[in-house]
Order: sequence, then structure tokens, then C-alpha cells
Amino acid sequence: MNRDQLPPALTELAAAVAPLNPAAQAAARQRHDQLAKPPGSLGVLEDVGVQLAGIAGRCPPPVPRRPAVLIAAGDHGVHVRGVSPWPQAVSTAMATELLAGRATANALARRVGAAVTVLDVGLVEPLAPSEDLRTARVRAGTRDLVSGPALTVEEAVAAVGAGAAAARDLIDDGHDLLVLGEIGIANTTPSAALIGWASGRPAAAVTGRGAGADAELLARKVAVVDAALVRHRYEHHDDGGDETAAPSGAEPAVAALASLGGLEHAALVGAVLAGAPRVPVVLDGVTTLAAALIAARLAQPVVQRLVAGHRSAEPGASVALRTLGLRPLLDLDLRLGEGTGGLLAVPIVQAAASVLHDVVTLSEVLARR
Amino acid sequence: MNRDQLPPALTELAAAVAPLNPAAQAAARQRHDQLAKPPGSLGVLEDVGVQLAGIAGRCPPPVPRRPAVLIAAGDHGVHVRGVSPWPQAVSTAMATELLAGRATANALARRVGAAVTVLDVGLVEPLAPSEDLRTARVRAGTRDLVSGPALTVEEAVAAVGAGAAAARDLIDDGHDLLVLGEIGIANTTPSAALIGWASGRPAAAVTGRGAGADAELLARKVAVVDAALVRHRYEHHDDGGDETAAPSGAEPAVAALASLGGLEHAALVGAVLAGAPRVPVVLDGVTTLAAALIAARLAQPVVQRLVAGHRSAEPGASVALRTLGLRPLLDLDLRLGEGTGGLLAVPIVQAAASVLHDVVTLSEVLARR
Repeated sequence: MNRDQLPPALTELAAAVAPLNPAAQAAARQRHDQLAKPPGSLGVLEDVGVQLAGIAGRCPPPVPRRPAVLIAAGDHGVHVRGVSPWPQAVSTAMATELLAGRATANALARRVGAAVTVLDVGLVEPLAPSEDLRTARVRAGTRDLVSGPALTVEEAVAAVGAGAAAARDLIDDGHDLLVLGEIGIANTTPSAALIGWASGRPAAAVTGRGAGADAELLARKVAVVDAALVRHRYEHHDDGGDETAAPSGAEPAVAALASLGGLEHAALVGAVLAGAPRVPVVLDGVTTLAAALIAARLAQPVVQRLVAGHRSAEPGASVALRTLGLRPLLDLDLRLGEGTGGLLAVPIVQAAASVLHDVVTLSEVLARR
Repeated sequence: MNRDQLPPALTELAAAVAPLNPAAQAAARQRHDQLAKPPGSLGVLEDVGVQLAGIAGRCPPPVPRRPAVLIAAGDHGVHVRGVSPWPQAVSTAMATELLAGRATANALARRVGAAVTVLDVGLVEPLAPSEDLRTARVRAGTRDLVSGPALTVEEAVAAVGAGAAAARDLIDDGHDLLVLGEIGIANTTPSAALIGWASGRPAAAVTGRGAGADAELLARKVAVVDAALVRHRYEHHDDGGDETAAPSGAEPAVAALASLGGLEHAALVGAVLAGAPRVPVVLDGVTTLAAALIAARLAQPVVQRLVAGHRSAEPGASVALRTLGLRPLLDLDLRLGEGTGGLLAVPIVQAAASVLHDVVTLSEVLARR
């Protein structure tokens, strides 16, 4: 499979991702320097303002007023290897709480007025129908990524398409900022595998305690991630398993996504690629970051359009952020998922846009004196 | 002047500061562990929730819904030594913009629904009357802190009282969270001096570029801070000017505040001491942190009640945060002042309280299955 052989749906998604609008970025930088404050004194808030202008293609950029959080949900065959302290049914139980408005992400979403959508691309146990549920079940959980590929390429591509369609519909409905999140017991294991693959870092550097692994469980998880990376490299790369940065290009990324990823990872790749060309997309923890790493290999300029909501406590988050070159807005040792870290960052993104609208310029001040 | 000889107003303020309510804190910790999320997975947000419970004396703590930002304004005699690239009149010009709702702090305050109050405790050029202005002018700017004490103890105490009264009135009016900020061209110089004094760190480690000093100006500023510290230590301490941690206790802190501080620093000490016993108080950059260091020496438990809104780009901020033992909620290289970094942190404080109200417990989830 070379690039020409990529599924047309992916080629189309990737082709829609353009670099930021340089004129709008320059206008935002210039406006920041004209405001009645020392140039550069708003630090990262100015960088975000410039980015928002580049995404919107105009300065000042619109202040996002209708955020939405899209929470992709899936289960994982690797759960049989004991990589999580939680039973697999907790995925569906937590998604049920989300749909009932009782989870942590709901509390944080309400604070910023964000709509909550759960996208089931592959929970083992289906959810009861609900207004905020979107169903596009590709299969009931992935296969065990140690024994073989977690997904076929066709399955992964189907989940990418489901995520892209969900993002597209949210934006068509008027949502002007997208926070990405996930639910899936054991999904920090495939996240670590994808981050390890994309960064070239060893399993021990990218694997963390997730939702509460003790030392013994963490050691098992590292061994599982390592075994998955070795298997994948043996099957797909020339080097037969050495730890090196992954080959660049779209085809190896799609192969890795299918081989090492989860259905929610694939859906998030689609949401990133379909969402980022139109609205600011805010990432959460390791699963959304792993998806961003894959999306960046399909369409490099997408990274310029992403906002890293926070640095999670998972070690893979720091590795992924460094690989992507993104600076997180928050660093609060969160490791919950569900989009919680991304939701907490929404007011900062909104503030960055507001500054470009609402602050007086130095020349206006001087004109009044 | 020993503690018994402290002005009664200060003794009274300090005496009202109690440690956090341990029962409410324990209840918040317990509730966090019962919520349907991995224990500890909300990281610093859980710590803030526990702190808010301790301040309120109950769990769940109220979600702050009526924040206010109190911006203390003053000018500085040390401006004659060329420690700022800006003319002194900019203090009053920026305060005027704040009162007109056109400054950066106004944009950020509107985003979180915060009322803005400017407290003039000593601008050189008085402000025009305005609804949001509170006037308690102790003198028209401080004296040059290199030549001698910037303020008399009586002047400093008067400004402390003005800040305390302003905080008290805001809380009596129903404001349930206080962000502190400041305006005062050249005020990062006295802030650095106070932080250097309280931490025992040398001038070069606590002095930064403030609102845009170049290398030459920064070098001059470091020399000025060093000279002020040497003068102060020579006049007040036994060691005759060596760089060592300052003597503990209330009397040396009041002496340092008067000798090295500004009128807005003193007002902020009062706002901290009067505000923190009743509502969460969110700090901003080096000037509010310098005030917190003095307040902590008057009433040590006050630190437990403070929220560090952010880590500013000024090196003194990191030194002060370490000395206080506070972890900042944001780290975005801001160096604007006006309470901007504190205002950006308000949604995080509110979210920390919301989680303790709005998230389902694990046992409720299990009961439904």
C-alpha cells in the first residue's frame, strides 16, 4: 500500500488540511503589539490568539461560543492480558454515566457550556439509545494487539470515517470549537504503543499507570507495549524490531493505527482531520495525543491547528507533546480522560480570542490624553 | 517594635487568619475517592477542591459565582533610577483604561463575570472619579527605596488597612472569590526587593524584565534591587547586608514592607489578610506574590488559603512560589499584571468546586447496574 493506494476517504480527509493563513496570523501578531500592554506580555495567550486567527483566516478571530466535546468510545482485546485494574464493562458503564450527564466530563462541560456527544465505535457492550449518543460500531472491541493486528486496515478506516463524520456534523450544527476525548478501559496501552511507534521511544518511556495500575500491573503493561511494538516492527518495518523512529508517510501510519491502535483512536484521527480545518480542536490526554500523532503523519499541517489542552500525568503525554511540538495550556497532573483536560482549557482558548477583540490599542489611549 | 508593638490593626487582621477546616478537607478528600473516577485522577483539581472545602468549612464547598478582581494602584519613587522603560504617568493612564473597561484585565474579567475595582493607594497623578474606583491615597507615590525607606511604617500600615477595607467591602457585597492584581509603573523593582528579602535569594535571582526592560535596563534594575536590599539589611538586620533568609516574625516583615515595598504591595497584604479568611484569594504575578510573602509572615496559615493563579515569566515569581510552597494553576509566560493571570485561573477554581457537587459516585453507578 503506497500513498496512491490509501483509501480515498483518507486521502480526501488529509488533502483538506491546509497550513494556517499567514496573513491572518501576521495581523494578529501586529495587533498584539499595538494593544495597550507591553509587547509579548501575554505569553502563550498571544500564541494561541495568533493560531486562532490562522485557523479562522481572519483577525480578530471569532471567540468560540458553542464548544462541543466528542468522546469516542471503544474496547480493547488486549484487556485479556491484565493491563487494567478495571473490568471491561466499566467502559460502557462510564459511557452510560456520561450520557446521563453525571460524569466528570459533564460537570466540566457544563461549566463551559459544551455539548457532550459519545461516539460508540466499538464498545463490547452496546449502550442504550440516548439523545447524545452516536453509534457507528465497527466491531465489538479490538483484537489483542500482542498476538496480531488489533484491527484490519478496513476496520480502522471505517472508524476514522465515523469520527470524521461526527466532527463534521457537530461543526455543521454550529459548534465552533471541538474538544476531543475518549472512553475505553485499557486504552492507555494502545495509546502507549502508538506513541512509542511514532516517537521511536521505548515502551518503558511511554507507558504509564493509566487509571490506577500498581507497580506489578505497570510492569506487565510495559512488557505488553514492548511486545506489541516488536511484533508490529517485525511485520511492517525493515529493521525487524529495533527501537527507532517510525518510517514517515501516510501508509505506515495507517498500518500502525490498525495494528496497534483502538477504534476510538481511529475515530479521533478522523475527528482531528475533519475538525481541524474548520475549527480549533483541543486535545486531551494520551489517547487523543496518539491520534494526533497519526493524523500528523497523514497531513502534517494539521498540527498547527491543534491546541494541546493539558499535559497529562501519563509519561506518554510528554513524549507525544514533544514529538508534536505542542505546548500544553495546563499541567495539572490530570489522568482521567473523557476530554476533561481539554474542557478545562476551553476558557483559555476563548480568552485568547477575546483579547484580540476587546483590548484598547496604545494609540487609542494616547489619542485620549 | 516587637509583636506586641505591632499596630493593633495588623494584629487584628493577622489574628483572624485560622488554619483550614480539617474536617471539611477530609470530607472532600473522601468524596473525591468515592466519585466514579480513578482515585487521584483529577490531580491538582482535587487539591484545589480540598482547599476550597477547607476555606468554606464544608464539603462540597460552594462554587464561586461572583468573582471580583481588586487592582491596587500606586507609583514608585525608584522610578527616577530608570528601572522602567515607561513614563510614570502610564500608571494612571492604564488605571484609567481599566476603569473604562478597555484594558486586558477587563476583557478577561468579562469572560469570567468578575467585577473590577481599582484601589488608588498612591498614584502620583490622581484618577478621575469613576464607579469602579476606590480612593484611599496614602501619598503620591513612594520614596526611592535605594536612598532610604520607601514608606514609613505608618504609611505602609495605612495602605494595608485600605486594602483590607476594600477586600472586606467586596466580600460584604457578595463577592465569593477575590482575584488580586496591581498597576504601578516600576513596581516589579520593589516586588523583587521584597521577594529577595523574604527568600534570602540575591537580586539577580529575583529581578526580571518586568514590562519590557532590555539587557542594560535589567542590569540597572538588578543593581538597584541589590542596593535596596543591602541598605535595608544594614539598617534592620544584624548581618549588615549578607544575603541570608530574613528574620522570621511579624515585625521584620512590616519593616521590610515599608522599607522596600510599595503602597499597592501594602494594600495587597491587607487584601490577602482580610480576604483569605472568608473567600478563596487568587494571586497573580510578582507583586501579589511579594504581598503574600509578607502576609504569610504576619499570619502563617494564610498561605493554605491562597491560590497561585499562575507562574509569571518574572524570575521572582518562581522564587516566591517556591518560598510560599504554592503550585501555580497556569504557566503561560504571562507578565502583564493587572490580575490577568489570576483571572485566567478562575474557571479552574470554579471547576474544582463543581466536581465535588456534580459528579456521580461509584456506588451510585454500581447500584444502577
